[in-house]
Amino acid sequence: MHRINSVLVVLALSACIAACDRTKNGDQVIAAVRSVMEAQQAAWNRGDIEGFMDGYERADTTMFVSGDEVTRGWQTVLDRYKTRYTSREQMGTLSFSELEIKPVSPGLAVVDGRWRLARTNDSPHGRFTLLFRRNNNDWRIIHDTTTSATP
Amino acid sequence: MHRINSVLVVLALSACIAACDRTKNGDQVIAAVRSVMEAQQAAWNRGDIEGFMDGYERADTTMFVSGDEVTRGWQTVLDRYKTRYTSREQMGTLSFSELEIKPVSPGLAVVDGRWRLARTNDSPHGRFTLLFRRNNNDWRIIHDTTTSATP
Repeated sequence: MHRINSVLVVLALSACIAACDRTKNGDQVIAAVRSVMEAQQAAWNRGDIEGFMDGYERADTTMFVSGDEVTRGWQTVLDRYKTRYTSREQMGTLSFSELEIKPVSPGLAVVDGRWRLARTNDSPHGRFTLLFRRNNNDWRIIHDTTTSATP
Repeated sequence: MHRINSVLVVLALSACIAACDRTKNGDQVIAAVRSVMEAQQAAWNRGDIEGFMDGYERADTTMFVSGDEVTRGWQTVLDRYKTRYTSREQMGTLSFSELEIKPVSPGLAVVDGRWRLARTNDSPHGRFTLLFRRNNNDWRIIHDTTTSATP
């Protein structure tokens, strides 16, 4: 009886340690991804598109999907932003909200949320789904699908 | 020298076997996911929304994102489709194209592609990004982000 109790205590402790480790890792992933997105928002709001693009993996496989188009490659996504936002007025003030960051496998996380650009004459907004991948200790967006509310 | 050559041959063979296995597994994933999407397209085009919904994981965590809204849970996504498509005319003829199916970790795949509804008076279209998860041997959509071309 005593031995069974000891076994149960050991099992319970192991389960707790495994679960706690997972929770701790999940919390670390969420914090790391959130800080990348906060850095993106801050970069955009000081007019720094290249700084904003630092949130994306610098790879030819990086994808940005919106409306009816897909843009492939870090440089091409940067060029697209630069073509569409040529002034601070056009860039407006970006805010992300309702972030849901979900680790889906070791080294991968899915992020859902809302975006909004506050500008003088309009405030375009919508949702996004991002796929983040860990590369060494850095989390970067490898895939971005952005939707827009009907104006 | 002979021993080194043998070691090299064994290493090369192992690398080949591992790579071939990965390719074979990747091909199997791509085929399985593609067949789910073909079944969805076929179900839609016979007016069978429930059959179409069989491509999605029957879970409260299943998410559908489009425009400015997020719909959560298999049943709620089904209800949304049923509300928006109340006749065969509204459903039109669905086609998926330009499918890119990428396994991203064991049991997870990302799918990009185009959708189009051919209808009598219009043909709405756009893109989508799906996250498929394997559950036993079944691949199902756990997350769908769908964009629309500006009409």
